Amino acid sequence: MRMEPGSVGGGRQRPGRPRVLLTMGDPAGVGPEIALRTLADGGLRADFDLVAVGARDVFERCAARLSLPFDAQVVGTAPEAAPSEPGRPTTAGAAAAAAAVVEAARLCLSGAADAMVTAPVIKATVAEAGYDFPGHTEFLARLAGAGCVVMTFVHGARRVGLVTNHLPLAAVAGALTKELVLEKLLTLARGLDAALGVKFPRIAVAALNPHAGERGAIGDEEARVIAPAVAAAREAGVDAEGPLPADALFPRLGAREGSGREGGARFDAALAMYHDQATIPLRLWGVGDAVNVTLGLPIVRTSPGHGVALDVAGRGVADAGGMIAATRLAGEIAARVARRRTGAG
Amino acid sequence: MRMEPGSVGGGRQRPGRPRVLLTMGDPAGVGPEIALRTLADGGLRADFDLVAVGARDVFERCAARLSLPFDAQVVGTAPEAAPSEPGRPTTAGAAAAAAAVVEAARLCLSGAADAMVTAPVIKATVAEAGYDFPGHTEFLARLAGAGCVVMTFVHGARRVGLVTNHLPLAAVAGALTKELVLEKLLTLARGLDAALGVKFPRIAVAALNPHAGERGAIGDEEARVIAPAVAAAREAGVDAEGPLPADALFPRLGAREGSGREGGARFDAALAMYHDQATIPLRLWGVGDAVNVTLGLPIVRTSPGHGVALDVAGRGVADAGGMIAATRLAGEIAARVARRRTGAG
Repeated sequence: MRMEPGSVGGGRQRPGRPRVLLTMGDPAGVGPEIALRTLADGGLRADFDLVAVGARDVFERCAARLSLPFDAQVVGTAPEAAPSEPGRPTTAGAAAAAAAVVEAARLCLSGAADAMVTAPVIKATVAEAGYDFPGHTEFLARLAGAGCVVMTFVHGARRVGLVTNHLPLAAVAGALTKELVLEKLLTLARGLDAALGVKFPRIAVAALNPHAGERGAIGDEEARVIAPAVAAAREAGVDAEGPLPADALFPRLGAREGSGREGGARFDAALAMYHDQATIPLRLWGVGDAVNVTLGLPIVRTSPGHGVALDVAGRGVADAGGMIAATRLAGEIAARVARRRTGAG
Repeated sequence: MRMEPGSVGGGRQRPGRPRVLLTMGDPAGVGPEIALRTLADGGLRADFDLVAVGARDVFERCAARLSLPFDAQVVGTAPEAAPSEPGRPTTAGAAAAAAAVVEAARLCLSGAADAMVTAPVIKATVAEAGYDFPGHTEFLARLAGAGCVVMTFVHGARRVGLVTNHLPLAAVAGALTKELVLEKLLTLARGLDAALGVKFPRIAVAALNPHAGERGAIGDEEARVIAPAVAAAREAGVDAEGPLPADALFPRLGAREGSGREGGARFDAALAMYHDQATIPLRLWGVGDAVNVTLGLPIVRTSPGHGVALDVAGRGVADAGGMIAATRLAGEIAARVARRRTGAG
């Protein structure tokens, strides 16, 4: 890590203000642009110490190309990324993006920073650059030596955690065990409370099969795997319900006041069995507002719900709303965790 | 079939008015109530000849219990169902419900009626009554000797067809072949035009895996099965696109004017690979308004998108909106088909 004037370890930090790191993401995507826009956000700057992490030349070229302000603290990481066309990812760019993630994680693990927000990368290109990278979630879990982590999307008062992340659909049923579902459920419940501040969360657990298996007529995973995991979680004091048919579950997520014609009690969160079961409703609620948070890590990490958006990159029209929301949430979680540590919360 | 005064074959039919049959559904569910409310709907009665099909005693008891009007034409079918508690399904009730479906299909196939709308039954109970009944869709396909049929949900300007219906999720990937996806796609395209009146429909074909398999990194069904089927359909003149990531696809369904922040062109319809992939978005759009239509049958058949709702049955509060919408659509399809047959449309 190279120290820069005013960078991490420098003098701008005020006690009690969470220090939040923003990684640059793939230089060919919208990452550098939305990171710069987020670093310039007045509301965020009022509440948090924001620090850019990545190849300094990438930020500088992006700021110059799009005439964006760039007066933020920077932790510059090697390698610098050779100039690249927006929309045309390179292995060198991916290597620079991955180095930023590694450095940000190191700073969080060492206590030099309080949270990290990752701009989007391209998994396949990061792998070409030599990293074993199924995704930020799994990569950070390994870097941090974490046990069970839960990829969780936060969309206002709706939170959706995933049991399996980026598996082929054909492999999902075989990957589900009572132990895995239980572990994810307990991690989600703890994270909802400790990180997201939801006291005694009510969690709906999704079924795997149509109509929740219709009493075994359409698959047995509900009776064999999910129901026993829910029962065990309830014995451990978690307010979980399910397995519920996935299509009936998602309209019941969100503000407890209830809404519209969908009957039944409301839930603070859902546990989905597979990727699209979670992301189909999230996209319909509006992807721009969804924040991805990794629960179960020893560090605080969020990201916007969207990807690199290669078709948008370099045009100066990228919507930084997701990155800003992710940064706001990361800072809030960091503040909550700090209050708990000092017994003040 | 017992003829009743004013029943099918009687004198109330006016030429050109579609004759639409309503089956009663399971007597323990909301079926009889929503059928009675639909039969009494003034708007529908102005446009269509509505006929109730089922055990006469079930309709009579329901009308008496809930003080609902009951002056509709009836085709009474045996067996009568012994009085049953709302919310407590019996095998005898399911047998009566299935008999109504068989009779309605017979009347449509013979030309004595133009369309049928099925109130919900309970698959498992119908099976206990001795019927091989995976669902109305498959049951009617067999009764009618149909080849490929597509379970399709219509929600305003959004239509979603299914490649697989009520399969365990673990069996979905194995059931997908290029031939099956192609057959469903062609049937959906024809049905959108002929039955639903969508000229040159633009159809989005959903991927099976997260991120549409991310170029083979997360499953190969996109490249091996779905893309070749889409290519073959395009060669056959169908305006199909895909496979598209399912979460990105559904926000692009509907009115072609586009809406909000989701980019890309709009689609008239989607082809989903499995049940919940279709029903999760449908429930979020609002289940009450979704109509299930079976495309590819030689007869016209629709149903409301909801189930028997045992917890609501018998209280007089069932929402007939779905059944009314299904009946309206069935009549419209019947009129469109008739115009085509006579060359008037």
